[in-house]
Amino acid sequence: MSEENWVIDLRSDTLTQPTREMKEAMMMASLGDDVFGEDPTVRQLEAKLAGIFGMEAGLFCPSGTMTNQIAIRLHTQPQTEVVCHKQSHIYLYEGGGIMSNSHASVRLLDGELGKIDAESIRHVINPDDDHAPETALVSLENTMNKGGGSVYHLAEVRPIRQLCKETGLKLHLDGARLFNALIHSGDRAYEWGRMFDTISICLSKGLGCPVGSVLLGKQSDIKKARKIRKAMGGGMRQAGMLAAAGIYALDHHVSRLEDDHIRARIIGEIMQKLPHVREILPVSTNILIARLDKISPESFLEQLAEKNIRAVKFGNDQIRMVTHLDIEDRHLEALEARLANWKSTL
Amino acid sequence: MSEENWVIDLRSDTLTQPTREMKEAMMMASLGDDVFGEDPTVRQLEAKLAGIFGMEAGLFCPSGTMTNQIAIRLHTQPQTEVVCHKQSHIYLYEGGGIMSNSHASVRLLDGELGKIDAESIRHVINPDDDHAPETALVSLENTMNKGGGSVYHLAEVRPIRQLCKETGLKLHLDGARLFNALIHSGDRAYEWGRMFDTISICLSKGLGCPVGSVLLGKQSDIKKARKIRKAMGGGMRQAGMLAAAGIYALDHHVSRLEDDHIRARIIGEIMQKLPHVREILPVSTNILIARLDKISPESFLEQLAEKNIRAVKFGNDQIRMVTHLDIEDRHLEALEARLANWKSTL
Amino acid sequence: MSEENWVIDLRSDTLTQPTREMKEAMMMASLGDDVFGEDPTVRQLEAKLAGIFGMEAGLFCPSGTMTNQIAIRLHTQPQTEVVCHKQSHIYLYEGGGIMSNSHASVRLLDGELGKIDAESIRHVINPDDDHAPETALVSLENTMNKGGGSVYHLAEVRPIRQLCKETGLKLHLDGARLFNALIHSGDRAYEWGRMFDTISICLSKGLGCPVGSVLLGKQSDIKKARKIRKAMGGGMRQAGMLAAAGIYALDHHVSRLEDDHIRARIIGEIMQKLPHVREILPVSTNILIARLDKISPESFLEQLAEKNIRAVKFGNDQIRMVTHLDIEDRHLEALEARLANWKSTL
Amino acid sequence: MSEENWVIDLRSDTLTQPTREMKEAMMMASLGDDVFGEDPTVRQLEAKLAGIFGMEAGLFCPSGTMTNQIAIRLHTQPQTEVVCHKQSHIYLYEGGGIMSNSHASVRLLDGELGKIDAESIRHVINPDDDHAPETALVSLENTMNKGGGSVYHLAEVRPIRQLCKETGLKLHLDGARLFNALIHSGDRAYEWGRMFDTISICLSKGLGCPVGSVLLGKQSDIKKARKIRKAMGGGMRQAGMLAAAGIYALDHHVSRLEDDHIRARIIGEIMQKLPHVREILPVSTNILIARLDKISPESFLEQLAEKNIRAVKFGNDQIRMVTHLDIEDRHLEALEARLANWKSTL
Repeated sequence: MSEENWVIDLRSDTLTQPTREMKEAMMMASLGDDVFGEDPTVRQLEAKLAGIFGMEAGLFCPSGTMTNQIAIRLHTQPQTEVVCHKQSHIYLYEGGGIMSNSHASVRLLDGELGKIDAESIRHVINPDDDHAPETALVSLENTMNKGGGSVYHLAEVRPIRQLCKETGLKLHLDGARLFNALIHSGDRAYEWGRMFDTISICLSKGLGCPVGSVLLGKQSDIKKARKIRKAMGGGMRQAGMLAAAGIYALDHHVSRLEDDHIRARIIGEIMQKLPHVREILPVSTNILIARLDKISPESFLEQLAEKNIRAVKFGNDQIRMVTHLDIEDRHLEALEARLANWKSTL
Repeated sequence: MSEENWVIDLRSDTLTQPTREMKEAMMMASLGDDVFGEDPTVRQLEAKLAGIFGMEAGLFCPSGTMTNQIAIRLHTQPQTEVVCHKQSHIYLYEGGGIMSNSHASVRLLDGELGKIDAESIRHVINPDDDHAPETALVSLENTMNKGGGSVYHLAEVRPIRQLCKETGLKLHLDGARLFNALIHSGDRAYEWGRMFDTISICLSKGLGCPVGSVLLGKQSDIKKARKIRKAMGGGMRQAGMLAAAGIYALDHHVSRLEDDHIRARIIGEIMQKLPHVREILPVSTNILIARLDKISPESFLEQLAEKNIRAVKFGNDQIRMVTHLDIEDRHLEALEARLANWKSTL
Repeated sequence: MSEENWVIDLRSDTLTQPTREMKEAMMMASLGDDVFGEDPTVRQLEAKLAGIFGMEAGLFCPSGTMTNQIAIRLHTQPQTEVVCHKQSHIYLYEGGGIMSNSHASVRLLDGELGKIDAESIRHVINPDDDHAPETALVSLENTMNKGGGSVYHLAEVRPIRQLCKETGLKLHLDGARLFNALIHSGDRAYEWGRMFDTISICLSKGLGCPVGSVLLGKQSDIKKARKIRKAMGGGMRQAGMLAAAGIYALDHHVSRLEDDHIRARIIGEIMQKLPHVREILPVSTNILIARLDKISPESFLEQLAEKNIRAVKFGNDQIRMVTHLDIEDRHLEALEARLANWKSTL
Repeated sequence: MSEENWVIDLRSDTLTQPTREMKEAMMMASLGDDVFGEDPTVRQLEAKLAGIFGMEAGLFCPSGTMTNQIAIRLHTQPQTEVVCHKQSHIYLYEGGGIMSNSHASVRLLDGELGKIDAESIRHVINPDDDHAPETALVSLENTMNKGGGSVYHLAEVRPIRQLCKETGLKLHLDGARLFNALIHSGDRAYEWGRMFDTISICLSKGLGCPVGSVLLGKQSDIKKARKIRKAMGGGMRQAGMLAAAGIYALDHHVSRLEDDHIRARIIGEIMQKLPHVREILPVSTNILIARLDKISPESFLEQLAEKNIRAVKFGNDQIRMVTHLDIEDRHLEALEARLANWKSTL
């Protein structure tokens, strides 16, 4: 296949193919029926990840949407309210699940690069009044997808934790890309574990697994989470095959995330030079968002596609590119080469 | 009682006492069991109001929250989305009912004086994508409480109606104070009836009834609405006593709303001169919102209360005053007198 | 009007017209805005009824369906289960509200005359297992409508209370016709109040009020109940007019229920003699259920209707008749007279 | 390991380990991101299974609970009702999901061996009345787990299909073990496909896959089902690895189910002779239910466990044993030998 023919697929870090070594780990896994609580590999993964974050227990689920939605069910009741950024994945991209699964309301905050702070949260905590739903949960996302992979630092989370403690609110973290955040910030995992009531960790993004997420929390919450998972249809039988990929990824695919971040910055520099690219949002991790000028995302993406470069529309004047396990230096070289010729054709 | 001792209660137009004539109408009403569909006075009220707006049918309910919430249930399903202004009563003040009753998501828009337009709605209609709830309903509020009793004109609603038609969205009107709006704009009721799938009309605000709202819509929708009302607990027996008040109010309390509007404007002029009052939002109907400066609403209200003038906090730097059936010219005179002395004491 | 022309309406005790005295009490009531918690008559009714049953607090609502549904919301969460008789009003006649309002499951028990006992409840308490919803609430109904107005005695309720205490279940009473039960059994109201977490009392059945029910319970539960009532649309403004009827009825319409019971027994004796009447269920209070033989309820009711006697179908081979405030001795005499001639015509 | 030491695990057919050949198929599968609709192996499985049943489309999900729950969401709305046998998996073992996911009510029928018929369904279709939820869906289960693996024949389903057509009800099949039923009855799969609006097929029971179920139905329903799956958290990324197991199982593990059925009958004959076994329910497929006499299921299971034979409690006086891919003739011989000695010790 000639260089121009192979696809440089930057649409998402969920696109990764499991590696040969990961597949071998999956084949070798000891299996049991996890609905009976008997799959040793699932238990191992749950314990391993809980250990990393210093949390009591974990629950393996088919998706990050499920781990988030279970957490919201855990911490809310009908007629209570979830506070989150207006661009949160839990609000925008989980099919209205906050309302259809938990019957809870949302209070949506603005904030730079998709991040919110204690002061803005404090401002929207509802008074004890019959007219308003009771504020029950704050949910953060780290890294923040719609913020261009922006990163919360511990110093930003501590006052939020403090506020939640004072006011009796629960605090959940959508950590779909938390390892990317930790690699960037240098924060320790266990310090993050201390901040939150529950954390959702996705294995099928930067970590490169085919399927699965883990919800971390207190023993008592995880016991309830199993019941919720059952009714949502997340109980899987010999799930150890999938969990084995997770264990492998935790051992082999975490530190390499740094490479994804470097590559994302390099792509950012390449993209910056293109016509119609008004701005590249700060690239902290493996996501880059380009703001466009005088061109629709659709047209821009179409022209990239002609060069076998794929990205996604991300709002009305933005596109998103994501680096991952299947993007290597040769892709960057090809990207640069293909885009070098492009300049004049626009 | 000396002038200074009687209360000028401007907290809400829901505070009105039924008049002697209204009570007499209630006493004389023919009654039956409305759960069996046999209360003639309820039927008369429903038909009368439907007739005024040129709509097919009506349903009497214990509150405007119920008529709104039933309408939302009618037009949505779990995993669909309601578009409304972020300061809408249905979102802010109905206890999270959109989510707990209908399991539907909300998309919240900004907009001057609490109003939204077709362009901003078009912008947030979700694409047909598994990640996003399906946009199903647009809900307007007229007059708009949090917008200071601001009024939509037909010319503003027509493009929204057109957009809804094109895109298959339903359109609901929270007309808690719709008669105030019509009195202000001079629009005909039946023209408004043609714009909406359902309209909620409140009888216990400016119209001065003790209890009740009516939901207007198509026969088929009102039939379903009765089923929803049943499960929500809104089926009442000899409700004709309450409906009789509604009929009386439609006959006697509509045109007099103009007086409330004039009085609200006069109060606005009085308030404007007070220290700490930064701005009075445009007064179109019976609501006035005063923006405060360098004083908390709580302190400001406390000082008013010392003069037996009552209003309510309405956001972090605002208070609201509402005129109604029980506020007469003598109240305005007293208000002016009491506040004249106030100036210096602050 | 000739005797044959006036209707003897035994369809329900919800059909009663408010008496002149009751209406006068309504006219005289002190009123306020109950959504602001300021209606003195509502407060008086709530306190009066709570006092009678020795419970902490009460909440006035537009219907018994609402008081029941609020209680179920109070005591359950999604994925929990309500245990009740399979013929309970809360399951059969509240529009599927257990599921649409509370998202809770039901476990339905059999039992003579619509009553259930501790042993059958114990048997269906779910084990702590992910597959089954957690048993949370037991709900009784007294008198039991579908059991022919059958009555629970305290001795039957005590073991259920004991079981609930042991197993952490909540216990609710749908007391739509509780005063009928107390009149029959001679039990003291306060003894009943001690047995239950919440009790729903209906004012618009035997007590003869036009509208309203009261939920009784602990202060903390009633505070939450107000929030639930708000989102369900049960907040009413000058509801004191309705509450005044309730206060009047508690003072004047309780002891007279004995008359309704006597009349129901007399009607039972009359009906017993009719052809096609296979059996009259034991008549304890104001309800009588006749089991039919070789005739459909529809045909039977039609023939009664020809004589201007009205009753309702109550299952596939049953009809129900109910005595109430508007059924007097002259109705019984007329009934007997009209049915005396009937015998031969069938 | 001596014969007495290895476990004969008859608790469930969900316990099977994937075979080496199945795992190889999983390793070789072409993969893509199924949330983007790009996993070719998932698409192949969905199309293959839809083809077998002559249905339009399929949707791969993590569990049979999810495929059932999505189907119920598809066919119901809040305040509608599902008719099913009182021992249905969807009611008893899916965590109260009918109510927590769909907010729908249930009408529970009795019936021999867990089966229901058209007449009993017709009997419970609710009239068009505000008090009752609207009957919307009938759900069958084939084979019927709690009926001892009992089998519906087409002749039994046709009148139910006819009734649903006449009355506008939807008809769903929980076909967790449908292939067992087809093997037993000799019915053709496509004849079954014609009967139902949706069918749920489980791959991780008799078919021996580690994870997954497929929902079959109309294109338009499956499109909606994808949206529901998203919010329930069932969207998986490189799910083709799991789907490959399904394709392998459809090719290699269907006809062998006959062996499971024969073995279940043989085990039934062995069990029949044991003391305390009052009755063996008719064994049609791979499930046998033994009714016990004068012993609790717990004690009986404990004694089996001492001989390394495992089964499960299945109600208050029953145990269940299930044959599957991992139970071979040697297990039967061992079972017989171990139980031969048992007789006297009880």
